[in-house]
Amino acid sequence: MPVMTHSSAVRAHYRISAADAVEARDLADAMAREQTLEVPPGAAPPAIEDRFLGRVVQVEPYARSGGGPDRWSVSVDYSTELLDGTATQFLNLVWGNVSLMDHVLLVDLDIPDTVLDTFPGPGPGQEGIRALVSAPAHRPLVSSALKPVGLTTDAIVSIARKLTAAGMDLIKDDHSLANQATAPFRERIEAVSHAIRETNAAAGTSTAYLPNATAPLHEMLERVAFAQSCGCGGVVISPGLTGLDAMRAVRERFPDMGIMAHPSHANTSPNATHGIAPPLLMGTLWRLFGADMLIYVNARGRFAWPLEACKAINERARAPLGRHRTAFPVPAGGVQAADAAHWVDVYGPDTLLLVGGSILEASDVEARARAVVQAVAGVAAPSTGA
Amino acid sequence: MPVMTHSSAVRAHYRISAADAVEARDLADAMAREQTLEVPPGAAPPAIEDRFLGRVVQVEPYARSGGGPDRWSVSVDYSTELLDGTATQFLNLVWGNVSLMDHVLLVDLDIPDTVLDTFPGPGPGQEGIRALVSAPAHRPLVSSALKPVGLTTDAIVSIARKLTAAGMDLIKDDHSLANQATAPFRERIEAVSHAIRETNAAAGTSTAYLPNATAPLHEMLERVAFAQSCGCGGVVISPGLTGLDAMRAVRERFPDMGIMAHPSHANTSPNATHGIAPPLLMGTLWRLFGADMLIYVNARGRFAWPLEACKAINERARAPLGRHRTAFPVPAGGVQAADAAHWVDVYGPDTLLLVGGSILEASDVEARARAVVQAVAGVAAPSTGA
Repeated sequence: MPVMTHSSAVRAHYRISAADAVEARDLADAMAREQTLEVPPGAAPPAIEDRFLGRVVQVEPYARSGGGPDRWSVSVDYSTELLDGTATQFLNLVWGNVSLMDHVLLVDLDIPDTVLDTFPGPGPGQEGIRALVSAPAHRPLVSSALKPVGLTTDAIVSIARKLTAAGMDLIKDDHSLANQATAPFRERIEAVSHAIRETNAAAGTSTAYLPNATAPLHEMLERVAFAQSCGCGGVVISPGLTGLDAMRAVRERFPDMGIMAHPSHANTSPNATHGIAPPLLMGTLWRLFGADMLIYVNARGRFAWPLEACKAINERARAPLGRHRTAFPVPAGGVQAADAAHWVDVYGPDTLLLVGGSILEASDVEARARAVVQAVAGVAAPSTGA
Repeated sequence: MPVMTHSSAVRAHYRISAADAVEARDLADAMAREQTLEVPPGAAPPAIEDRFLGRVVQVEPYARSGGGPDRWSVSVDYSTELLDGTATQFLNLVWGNVSLMDHVLLVDLDIPDTVLDTFPGPGPGQEGIRALVSAPAHRPLVSSALKPVGLTTDAIVSIARKLTAAGMDLIKDDHSLANQATAPFRERIEAVSHAIRETNAAAGTSTAYLPNATAPLHEMLERVAFAQSCGCGGVVISPGLTGLDAMRAVRERFPDMGIMAHPSHANTSPNATHGIAPPLLMGTLWRLFGADMLIYVNARGRFAWPLEACKAINERARAPLGRHRTAFPVPAGGVQAADAAHWVDVYGPDTLLLVGGSILEASDVEARARAVVQAVAGVAAPSTGA
């Protein structure tokens, strides 16, 4: 299918449903028009159509379906002239009105370096996060969570002390710890960061604390500044809740703070036929918009996510992405303490494992946390890479 | 199913897929836990479980499926103690990690007035938008769009003059007109608002211009201020692109500016079994977070949205919502000029019809726009209400 190419383009790869090749091609053409000119053929001057209309560069069968319409792979080139340097217009161009169509999935993007350069990428990145917790290269990292929401600040501090004494690399706030009366943000961050610093000094550990900063943007920027003033090296942000661009704004303002992206409200699943596929959303876009650590829901956890999707996210977190640093994939969401060694063995050393509930349900939280830390440390050989 | 109720709760209504009643109940319990405590049963103190765990208050069959698992209606109560006054935590509570599960749909919310009061709702609302364009009650409004992206500012101005002379109530920027070099934001807004003001004076019309302000939040606030300084009574914002909370932030800062919410990147469809259903997202949440005008994709347009979904959005835009004003539903996305009278007849007078491409493809844009304006004005009798 020979087509004129734009001088510079973002190529978007979609999957769609269509009964046959003609229907697939028609739908692809409609998508390319919808995402760009959004007027009927003939309504715009020919010079505008030539220069700005999205160009369908591929329509190929992807998978036969049993009974329903087949799935097709569709690729569309969008002229970079339609971008304006913002993340909002970038997202609009590749996943705008087509997000209202049924069974359309955005699976990948080929983004020119000139466009990658307009976004911040990770701050500290993998190397910086290792430095933050004094971990050598080739050792997987391990983290746990402060929860549940509803606990008082004192109760949270008590858990934080145990997890720190056990040698966790990172301790994050649960994503539902916001600014509730039971443990208000500033009170909690001040008390927990103090307790972790104290415990680090006593136990010889290097645990870092990541408070949940997710909030309306103006408040979030204040919360990140406050976390930084308390000595925290990073924060948790749920970009689904704040908007992807709000995470980017935090990154631009705080280039040295680690950002752990949490998937709440991310509206994605590897099994879905609609939306943005998890590897692209979590592995590429979150990283491009500033995240250093990418939480996804692990296989065999509380969600039905297949292992291949998890591996695909890992791969993107670590793959070249223009000038940008690599990020840590963070498998989470029901990781069992007893399986910690297994997962870092499967996923390789450049992994940050997150084990929450399975530690917190133990009668001796510190002992179980220590067992997890030791199990992960025992799988440090670089030859076990994913 | 008798359950203890929270003293104050947000009730969320979901649809889920499950093979039988036992599986449905188990999934509902898992969702209620996931959205609140997110630790295994027994890990939290009993007092915390009693006070903060989400409570499943209903699990009922919704629809039989041919072959696959059936659909079930599930309702869960979330204690308002888990809120903190922010939209981000509100969204996290009702649609957080469950957004990562397959075939889970959030269809409705019962929100106590105390919670509704923490969000701004529309600014001018329906009445204010009518006043902006000097339209009496009981007359449907009609709008058109400046597009396609790629046109120069001069070419856009020329279209704006024709649409104004024809008597359009509102003219909006296409949602893809951002800050591209072909028609930079400030240049475009200054030139178009000037041209519309001039044409209004010459033609005796009352057309209002809504520039597209969608951008990163800090930039967006500046763009709205600039639009206001150019005499624009409102703006277009795509909350899917900016994050819902960014639209709320604009509303709080600019209580008098009209906000037309656009569905780009909204990731929703009436046919989907996953996500937030369009009537709740567009009819209730957009309105609650500040929109006065709610663009959705109309039946028989470029998207396969059924008429019932459109009517459900209309109903929510106009229904009581705590202390908040009503909003205009804005059917769009392939509305044919020839069908304009039909749609306002079907949807009733409190409708703002948006006809774009079908006007712009005419050889005489002004004449076709005038025909649409006159057709809509001819269906002004209040007895034709939806």
